[in-house]
Amino acid sequence: MATKHLFLLPGDGIGPEAMAAVKKLISAMNEKLGSGFATDEGLVGGCAYDAHGAAISDADMAKAMAADAVLFGAVGGPKWDAVPYEVRPEAGLLRLRKDMELFANLRPAICYPALAASSSLKQEVVEGLDILIVRELTGGVYFGEPKQIIDLGNGQKRGIDTQVYDTFEIERISGVAFELARTRRNHVTSMEKRNVMKSGVLWNEVVTQTHKARYSDVKLDHMLADAGGMQLVRWPKQFDVIVTDNLFGDMLSDIAAMLTGSIGMLPSASLGAPDVKTKKRKALYEPVHGSAPDIAGKGIANPIAMIASFAMCLRYSFGMVDEADRLEGAIAAVLDQGLRTKDIFSPGMTEVGTVEMGDAIIARF
Amino acid sequence: MATKHLFLLPGDGIGPEAMAAVKKLISAMNEKLGSGFATDEGLVGGCAYDAHGAAISDADMAKAMAADAVLFGAVGGPKWDAVPYEVRPEAGLLRLRKDMELFANLRPAICYPALAASSSLKQEVVEGLDILIVRELTGGVYFGEPKQIIDLGNGQKRGIDTQVYDTFEIERISGVAFELARTRRNHVTSMEKRNVMKSGVLWNEVVTQTHKARYSDVKLDHMLADAGGMQLVRWPKQFDVIVTDNLFGDMLSDIAAMLTGSIGMLPSASLGAPDVKTKKRKALYEPVHGSAPDIAGKGIANPIAMIASFAMCLRYSFGMVDEADRLEGAIAAVLDQGLRTKDIFSPGMTEVGTVEMGDAIIARF
Ligand SMILES: CC(C)[C@H](C(=O)O)[C@@H](O)C(=O)O
Ligand SMILES: CC(C)[C@H](C(=O)O)[C@@H](O)C(=O)O
Repeated sequence: MATKHLFLLPGDGIGPEAMAAVKKLISAMNEKLGSGFATDEGLVGGCAYDAHGAAISDADMAKAMAADAVLFGAVGGPKWDAVPYEVRPEAGLLRLRKDMELFANLRPAICYPALAASSSLKQEVVEGLDILIVRELTGGVYFGEPKQIIDLGNGQKRGIDTQVYDTFEIERISGVAFELARTRRNHVTSMEKRNVMKSGVLWNEVVTQTHKARYSDVKLDHMLADAGGMQLVRWPKQFDVIVTDNLFGDMLSDIAAMLTGSIGMLPSASLGAPDVKTKKRKALYEPVHGSAPDIAGKGIANPIAMIASFAMCLRYSFGMVDEADRLEGAIAAVLDQGLRTKDIFSPGMTEVGTVEMGDAIIARF
Repeated sequence: MATKHLFLLPGDGIGPEAMAAVKKLISAMNEKLGSGFATDEGLVGGCAYDAHGAAISDADMAKAMAADAVLFGAVGGPKWDAVPYEVRPEAGLLRLRKDMELFANLRPAICYPALAASSSLKQEVVEGLDILIVRELTGGVYFGEPKQIIDLGNGQKRGIDTQVYDTFEIERISGVAFELARTRRNHVTSMEKRNVMKSGVLWNEVVTQTHKARYSDVKLDHMLADAGGMQLVRWPKQFDVIVTDNLFGDMLSDIAAMLTGSIGMLPSASLGAPDVKTKKRKALYEPVHGSAPDIAGKGIANPIAMIASFAMCLRYSFGMVDEADRLEGAIAAVLDQGLRTKDIFSPGMTEVGTVEMGDAIIARF
């Protein structure tokens, strides 16, 4: 079996603690199953800035580009709030997304039965929830130019960002959404603000055309992004796959994540286009949660989102569907067993730390 | 007492039905209290397009500019989905906002005690909720240029929108937020995406400076807009006043509205700067809900948001604080009494139509 090259970027805050659980899991898989993972590790975010003045070094970028998959923890923290914009922690993540051309960000929002009660939403609203947000990740207002602050004199400045989408970008992301919908409940909802944005008009048009030309077997709805946000809060189970742009996807996927009861649970996959020859996609896997600097280093962070991100990696990068299923099953099992990190604790459950939670999942795997 | 000039723009869908309740109320106030309202009425949205090919005519714009306050219903519907972008129903509303320079959009999200149970969120999460979203309304990606679709040839198009904010725009909207916070719980949370947007960097900087220079007695927090959306869903009572830009405000205020149990309940005020001489502000009042074409003409729409918008008009445009308080009290009273339109109906309550609901509120007033 060919060696599987993983490049690990634990990052800042709780990133390294969560990644430690995945490292243990990888060792266990190599030892017991002969899975053949080779890992290398680099710096991203604030720690990379501290080490060499950039949010990710060129050397680490090269390793990320060469790896079969990148596992990413989290970046940022108050320590780096005042560093220059170009080298702020997030710049490392944005460079990875852009240079690796990871245009498709898959963010499942799944409500684990054991946690349905801990959502701020009523149990019947979120129980059994299983939606997938497909967010465009390399375009839109995140990367459009001009992006600058101009000094107008007289104490006035002007901040400018540019939202840009080309036909091919909308086509390829909606293709991903339709393909995934076919493996699920066959229903895509596209969200934009075509009533105020020209990019929204184009988005709507291209999604409609792509649907008509290649995916007319899938049910397609269009929703304005503000109404979509409301509907997510009102009755999220009406959705299967949601496809939307970079900025709306950022907002809507965070909201969807929060519905499920804990953002500490949710993974994501960021995928590139399949290589013409090898058919392999560049890929990066990361938890939806951030670096949570307030709880970093305390050993109480929830490692589940990071472990679930690795499950997505097994599934999408290595076709290890059985292992992915078993890993996701192990997560559900320890939750059923009553183990809880602090963020998802409720009375009657057993509170455990990051290491215990990770070990329990590995033991069940 | 000087005549108070109101310009009514009922618009499309359920707009006219909801406005009918306010018209009755205005007549009653003129007769019984001698309130001295003079009303004129115009067309906006799809009905304006049908009548004269524009989403609002120049003549009606002139009346809106001259009025003491504009009451706006709702615009849009499937009938006009295919009209050209420049004359789509929303263009009427956007022109009113821009030409009247209504830069400050006040969107209270209040949870009526009688309705706390009908939210999709747990009762304890929303009970007693009272937050105010202050949304910038004349800038940002809604109006920035370039805003266009370019044909690139080869079947490729490019959709472009521009997010722009100048120092003075951020300064004046944050001033409104700080002033309002002083009359409430003295706490402002500013939301942007400074980690990816230059306009967000400037937003953060200017709000911080405005706070330091003039409002340091108010508590100020900054939150990334995606995290803000999550926190709204997780524990909305942590907020008092939220100040944010046009697009984030659109999304976040709709989500906040949905938290309260029914979007059919919530009013909004859009205000301009005080005139240098007269100190009067141009103002437009409108429900947060849309035109709801699916239930239009059936007599079942909830008129409360429109009536509550008129209460805001009494308060902000005419200083009629007692009348505004009494009107808001009348709304709460009919809800306590068990009257419900279909959208907020729950077992054990009395279902009523638009007219009955309006009449009951007027009778209580
Ligand atoms: C860290 C930040 C740049 C990032 C984003 O805005 O995309 C994050 O919020 C996310 O959703 O992955
Ligand atoms: C109708 C539409 C243009 C409008 C907006 O996006 O501002 C609406 O959603 C609102 O929030 O008032």
